[in-house]
Amino acid sequence: MKKLVNDPATVVAQSLEGFVLAHADLVALSRDPFVVRRAGGPVPGKVGLVSGGGSGHEPLHVGFVGRGMLDAAAPGEVFTSPPPDQFLAAITAADGGAGVVVVVKNYTGDVLNAEIAVELATEAGIEVRTVLVNDDVAVEDSTYTAGRRGVAGTVLVEKIAGAAAERGDDLDAVAAVAARTVAGVRTMGVALRACTVPHTGRPSFDLPDDEIEIGIGIHGEPGRRRVSAAPADEVTAMLLAPVVEDLGLAAGERVLLLVNGMGGTPDAELAIVFRQAHALLTAAGVLVHRALLGSYVTSLDMAGASLSVLRLDDELTALWDAPVTTARLRW
Amino acid sequence: MKKLVNDPATVVAQSLEGFVLAHADLVALSRDPFVVRRAGGPVPGKVGLVSGGGSGHEPLHVGFVGRGMLDAAAPGEVFTSPPPDQFLAAITAADGGAGVVVVVKNYTGDVLNAEIAVELATEAGIEVRTVLVNDDVAVEDSTYTAGRRGVAGTVLVEKIAGAAAERGDDLDAVAAVAARTVAGVRTMGVALRACTVPHTGRPSFDLPDDEIEIGIGIHGEPGRRRVSAAPADEVTAMLLAPVVEDLGLAAGERVLLLVNGMGGTPDAELAIVFRQAHALLTAAGVLVHRALLGSYVTSLDMAGASLSVLRLDDELTALWDAPVTTARLRW
Repeated sequence: MKKLVNDPATVVAQSLEGFVLAHADLVALSRDPFVVRRAGGPVPGKVGLVSGGGSGHEPLHVGFVGRGMLDAAAPGEVFTSPPPDQFLAAITAADGGAGVVVVVKNYTGDVLNAEIAVELATEAGIEVRTVLVNDDVAVEDSTYTAGRRGVAGTVLVEKIAGAAAERGDDLDAVAAVAARTVAGVRTMGVALRACTVPHTGRPSFDLPDDEIEIGIGIHGEPGRRRVSAAPADEVTAMLLAPVVEDLGLAAGERVLLLVNGMGGTPDAELAIVFRQAHALLTAAGVLVHRALLGSYVTSLDMAGASLSVLRLDDELTALWDAPVTTARLRW
Repeated sequence: MKKLVNDPATVVAQSLEGFVLAHADLVALSRDPFVVRRAGGPVPGKVGLVSGGGSGHEPLHVGFVGRGMLDAAAPGEVFTSPPPDQFLAAITAADGGAGVVVVVKNYTGDVLNAEIAVELATEAGIEVRTVLVNDDVAVEDSTYTAGRRGVAGTVLVEKIAGAAAERGDDLDAVAAVAARTVAGVRTMGVALRACTVPHTGRPSFDLPDDEIEIGIGIHGEPGRRRVSAAPADEVTAMLLAPVVEDLGLAAGERVLLLVNGMGGTPDAELAIVFRQAHALLTAAGVLVHRALLGSYVTSLDMAGASLSVLRLDDELTALWDAPVTTARLRW
């Protein structure tokens, strides 16, 4: 294994320190436990928005802290849920007196730890709503979940809920729009090459040179099936079909199309997947009304991509378009 | 080789089509030859800013087309210079009547082809200035260059010159500020794993499992030396020392620090390099006044990073801070 790290034990701490130094105008770092929070602290009277989860999926979540998106993020160890006290610290850091919405990707550890943190926050007088993201259509249960996994759709939930909070929606309204986003988004991923976790130094799974894994999870956990390596257009069709079917998309609908890189995939390949997904949706009479193309929810250096479709309406579109100022999403 | 491509012969065309579909609000695509140009066309009375070069370095250059940066980009085949007619088409697309500045990375093919294009543009009545970027301190001459190579510093030149053009500077002034940026920036890179070019399907060079290459070029061409894989802090020091020395940086100076990923390196590793470079510069009394952290000038899926330092003054800082609206840089 060759990586630009010093010691597996310090990867998360040192990368957070570097990230915050590079974005000191946007974010600040709290320690013991680590929380990346919006510079300037919580906004009085605004609903706070928080997320967290294992590290190794950057820019998720720390790259999405800032105006119009997350108020705080709890970055756990690599592929390891933050413990309850870390989730709690993020909730506390985001509390501006109007309550806090916690976005949780559906992984058993995250769900349990966030649940305890929410109980503790409630006892401390902070009103909290939890929104569970479970956009991955690949598998119904998985290595680390009961029910569907939460994957790349999370970035859409965080953006839209963040915009709702920023415009002054109250706690229930922010939670409701987040839940509505979850209800309207589906994702399916593919891996071409496994990632290597710093602690083990070995690829997280073995994938033969001529096979790809359809329905991969963002920790390298198994997907639906392995198939022979195929042209990008065929792979794109394999990802898009179950997403469209599960959403029940019909001609005439408007969507946001997200093609997301897993960390080790060049932009050019993602654009080729985007092109074909756009063509297939257009041919089905679906309007690609908004787009996001790039590596937003990664799996260390895994080569691969995921494809997400979010059903849009006027309100979700307006919230997507609303200004955002974070390290990785900014307009 | 496993890649999300359909046919090596269509990689550039299909990836451009996908890119432009995803960013239709910012850019448009011309064909025969391919030019990615700012949506809405050239701005009358504004100096045009153009760049181009082989594809495979995305988001450079197409991801930097938009308000406050490039007016047009000429994307060649993978790692292959655009021919003169493609450079010419980009110059023509950028011409708003106030002349055009062409930013050329110092590679022999790019330099020759751009030179011919500039002659043709001049004959057609467009006044053109060329600015050559040669920020790579690794080698004095290389596989593909006489003199130093142009690498990650190019993104800084494009941002700053683009801001100067946007605020209304005339042709000579935009060229001068671009040249001043080139004079103040130095870069050094490292590869941990080679990239694989779609046409060949093989890694572009062999790097043993326990070695890294210091001073690598952005096409995988040889650098200064191979050394044993080392902790990130040591590698960072190896990259930073020649940059600082070549720039003649002194205590009390202000700089922009860019830590750039080569395409296959996770954000977390780049942040660890940033952290140490920031610490070393700070210890030397240099103020890291601005920062850029991420994968901006890549080499397909190469694992590795480069470190660039730009000497700042008030004007360059203000131009860096000026608004920009492109696919990959936006504030």
